Amino acid sequence: METSILNTINSPEDLRKISSERLPQLAKELREFIIDIVATKEGHLGASLGVVELTIALHYFFNTPKDLLVWDVGHQAYGHKILTGRRQNFDTNRKLNGLSGFPKRTESIFDTFGVGHSSTSISAALGMAIASKLNGEKKQHIAVIGDASIASGMAFEGLNHAGVTDTDLWIILNDNAIGIDPSVGALKEYLTKAGIGKKPKQANIIEALNFHYSGPIDGHNFDSLFSAFEKLKKVKGPKFLHVITKKGKGLQKAEEDQVKYHAPGKFDKETGEVIPKNEEKLPPKFQDVFGLTLVELAKENKNIIGITPAMPTGSSLKFMMEEFPDRAFDVGIAEQHAVTLSAGMTTQGKVVFCAIYSTFLQRAYDQVIHDVALQNLPVIFCIDRAGLVGEDGATHQGVFDIAYLRCIPNLIIATPADEVELRNILYTASLGLENPIAIRYPRGRGNINNWKKTFKKIEIGRSRKIQSGEKVAILSVGNMLQNVKEATKKFSENFIEIIDMRFVKPLDEKRLHQVFKKFTTIITVEDGAISGGFNEAVISFANQHRYNSSIIPLGIPDEFIEHGTIEELQNLAGISVKAIKKTLDEVLT
Amino acid sequence: METSILNTINSPEDLRKISSERLPQLAKELREFIIDIVATKEGHLGASLGVVELTIALHYFFNTPKDLLVWDVGHQAYGHKILTGRRQNFDTNRKLNGLSGFPKRTESIFDTFGVGHSSTSISAALGMAIASKLNGEKKQHIAVIGDASIASGMAFEGLNHAGVTDTDLWIILNDNAIGIDPSVGALKEYLTKAGIGKKPKQANIIEALNFHYSGPIDGHNFDSLFSAFEKLKKVKGPKFLHVITKKGKGLQKAEEDQVKYHAPGKFDKETGEVIPKNEEKLPPKFQDVFGLTLVELAKENKNIIGITPAMPTGSSLKFMMEEFPDRAFDVGIAEQHAVTLSAGMTTQGKVVFCAIYSTFLQRAYDQVIHDVALQNLPVIFCIDRAGLVGEDGATHQGVFDIAYLRCIPNLIIATPADEVELRNILYTASLGLENPIAIRYPRGRGNINNWKKTFKKIEIGRSRKIQSGEKVAILSVGNMLQNVKEATKKFSENFIEIIDMRFVKPLDEKRLHQVFKKFTTIITVEDGAISGGFNEAVISFANQHRYNSSIIPLGIPDEFIEHGTIEELQNLAGISVKAIKKTLDEVLT
Repeated sequence: METSILNTINSPEDLRKISSERLPQLAKELREFIIDIVATKEGHLGASLGVVELTIALHYFFNTPKDLLVWDVGHQAYGHKILTGRRQNFDTNRKLNGLSGFPKRTESIFDTFGVGHSSTSISAALGMAIASKLNGEKKQHIAVIGDASIASGMAFEGLNHAGVTDTDLWIILNDNAIGIDPSVGALKEYLTKAGIGKKPKQANIIEALNFHYSGPIDGHNFDSLFSAFEKLKKVKGPKFLHVITKKGKGLQKAEEDQVKYHAPGKFDKETGEVIPKNEEKLPPKFQDVFGLTLVELAKENKNIIGITPAMPTGSSLKFMMEEFPDRAFDVGIAEQHAVTLSAGMTTQGKVVFCAIYSTFLQRAYDQVIHDVALQNLPVIFCIDRAGLVGEDGATHQGVFDIAYLRCIPNLIIATPADEVELRNILYTASLGLENPIAIRYPRGRGNINNWKKTFKKIEIGRSRKIQSGEKVAILSVGNMLQNVKEATKKFSENFIEIIDMRFVKPLDEKRLHQVFKKFTTIITVEDGAISGGFNEAVISFANQHRYNSSIIPLGIPDEFIEHGTIEELQNLAGISVKAIKKTLDEVLT
Repeated sequence: METSILNTINSPEDLRKISSERLPQLAKELREFIIDIVATKEGHLGASLGVVELTIALHYFFNTPKDLLVWDVGHQAYGHKILTGRRQNFDTNRKLNGLSGFPKRTESIFDTFGVGHSSTSISAALGMAIASKLNGEKKQHIAVIGDASIASGMAFEGLNHAGVTDTDLWIILNDNAIGIDPSVGALKEYLTKAGIGKKPKQANIIEALNFHYSGPIDGHNFDSLFSAFEKLKKVKGPKFLHVITKKGKGLQKAEEDQVKYHAPGKFDKETGEVIPKNEEKLPPKFQDVFGLTLVELAKENKNIIGITPAMPTGSSLKFMMEEFPDRAFDVGIAEQHAVTLSAGMTTQGKVVFCAIYSTFLQRAYDQVIHDVALQNLPVIFCIDRAGLVGEDGATHQGVFDIAYLRCIPNLIIATPADEVELRNILYTASLGLENPIAIRYPRGRGNINNWKKTFKKIEIGRSRKIQSGEKVAILSVGNMLQNVKEATKKFSENFIEIIDMRFVKPLDEKRLHQVFKKFTTIITVEDGAISGGFNEAVISFANQHRYNSSIIPLGIPDEFIEHGTIEELQNLAGISVKAIKKTLDEVLT
């Protein structure tokens, strides 16, 4: 039996019973188990393969769950989940009602802190460590953080505080020189100068911040790990262990192409070959419409700049980085910096496209208000992964952006419904606006294969009538239009009027007056939170003008939406084709 | 004539014409000018006094405004304003329609980037520097940043990126070992080990981040400054100059008590004595109600913790820091860290009061969503300076919090109307809630002298009826209740029903049903943005239940509100006593 050791381990307590000589065999089995499952069920791969030995060593050495282990980001925690009682249902990973792809407090006592966004682990573990000290409880608090995440400002804030405490805090730097894309920045270059057994030649930043620094050591070698743990356990106060690992370790193809194998989709577990999807005839991903259109625009206008905080592949800014390396910037996991850097550039006449996922723009909220909108600098925010994102779950849903952006003066909020609309609003923004603009578009593919049409300028704040009708009007936001169109197919064409709002801000008030004068029933459909969202903008308009139509809000209810396919989640939230149909049935009968 | 040199300087061009021997005399005059004005007109004092020589030296040496100078935070930029054409109207500083207390792009070409919040200068200046390079323009870009601000995560993100560029970027660290309160953290301790002419003994963090590091030098000595500038001008790429200054320099009392003289109010310009206000009989400041109540609660419950990011004095957490130094933490300008640290502590049973100004909580928005609300950890956010804050102006108004918090699931939003209500909701939260709670309260004083009453528990989500009436209902948020009470005095008592909502979330739906059944006209009053705010929550409720009353929204319109007294700004926004009266007059006639 290949998995003979792994099969006996239902908790770290079981793990700690086996002899240390058998750990390399366990590592082999754990790695194969992860590969087997992810090959068919999909998910994050490379990060978890890279920390197999580290994961085993941590649970072997420390007394989890009494000792508190915090994984940063958490997509590397598959091994942790498998060793902490979730082996048998690990095949439900990232599925509706199944395990979360990230550590989650409600899932296991071993998941001490829910994660998903990066660079939170130091602050969380320090909070635990200070609390333990005050509680008079002797335990260890271990944050495992990658080299991309530790370069984020929030991590620095945590280190800066931790350094002046005398807590039992361990920072394990899992240094594989890559996040989702290769790591960047001065700190990364600094760390890279270190090799295994060789401290950074230059000054030691970490020691300067009052940490006991140890390493770098080989993170795939159990003896090195245990020996380092033993030594550090005797050190008082915050300690820092620099561990070198290889992302994708143990699957050759994953080691060779670490970006692709971060989350490769289905692959052959023997060869590692990614199983090609028949995608040639599919419509493009929205991110590619953004990325490729930006290259087109940048060719015509040398003032155009692209900026991404650590998502060149995910946002498809990589196309511009390849074509115009001087004008496209990956600034690392630094959303705050990305936004204010963009603002600084616009003061010097640059036309800056700042591409950030909806959920990560939450990290730069103050910068959007204080550095961009307040000064009315025309930064162009390209907000990818807006709406429900599916399997990444609650930490990553892009459902708050409309609500948190709508209260900001000066800001335009555009919600293109399809690829051509996205393309045209990017073009419109590139011509120069007097205001900052947020352009939000979803994860995944659109529905137009032939999307590279001649550019057309869009009038800011102007909606589109998609279909005329007499009985009920639907005001649709963004690519909800596709669901709306699908849902209305079965009804007589002249029943339902469909408006693609195109802009949440400014609202097309002329259109709204027409709609409210004509219809007593109006349905708003948005893939964002109803609280503070588009629906409320519409009812606020209606209240202001004393219209008395019934306005039915379809959107994300006031709760966090977990993981599942986008379709499943749209069903739960009541914005799927089926849900819209149901509402129409009720209204029209 | 004492100000004979200063009077001749209407721009840096004039400054650069005078001989360098006369600069010390100019510094003396500039210092006196600042003291003269601030002594009677009030404003920030210590920071600007500390950089008088640095300000003169920068404008003398660099070719501003072609060379681009960015002040971090900007409350130290009075000298800069006076030297750049604003001497003659500097007495309008922080007054309605007068000069802003911070650099502001619309005010002067010398104000290259609007500031107010800390730690933005490196990102902004780097953006300018990259743009200049791409534009083929040879200029210098200088960020002047304090030792408190540089320890914030955002500043680290900027440094980390800048270090891998070859831009003409200068970071001038204005190190006076204090922000508003004394600086904290490991980086500060590290920097403190350096003295003038003496590089930090340990490793040099800044050099490790690829900067050319120079200093520390005496920031009050022109020869040292110019000599350092000259040397650095020959250095290619990003450079870092560590300058030691004394906050409050030149006014003995301000040097001795730097916290008090950060913004001392009126003082005697000769002796420096602060002119005592007759405040003994005034009601308390809301911040003190928070700070003193927390001490009371902490005495009874050893699990209570207080956290502030760099505002111990402003938030009055200082009282708890004095009484329970082990359980109250100033973590420096690190809002992100403060929130996630709080979350970590609550996982270990601590009852954490995290005090952050409304405008600065924007810096930790993602942490509120992702680390607190998503995990439903019962952190108690004490949101000071909510609503209009007055003279600090647009960068500091706390008007977005209701809108940006209302969309977050699980979160309770409490809006106490007076000191006793604040006290009781703090008490209620200390007993242990099942959800996180945001308690927002305004800058300044309340109206109840005898506020230390026996604690009473408040039912979450329950409103208070203040006055019964028959013709119109007012739904009031927070301390708007005081304006509402004042405005309704002149009307017959039985005309106007007044409800203190107490909670924006959850809404008291039972009460709302009663109100909507009884009244055809309802006025909502809030000191926050109408877009996404409380009013929209109410009309959303009305829409859901098909109530058809007219709902009049009084709140902050969709624009940034500049500086002035709170009363002036409330008038502009339409939420003053006068404005509420006017609305009532219209409704009741």
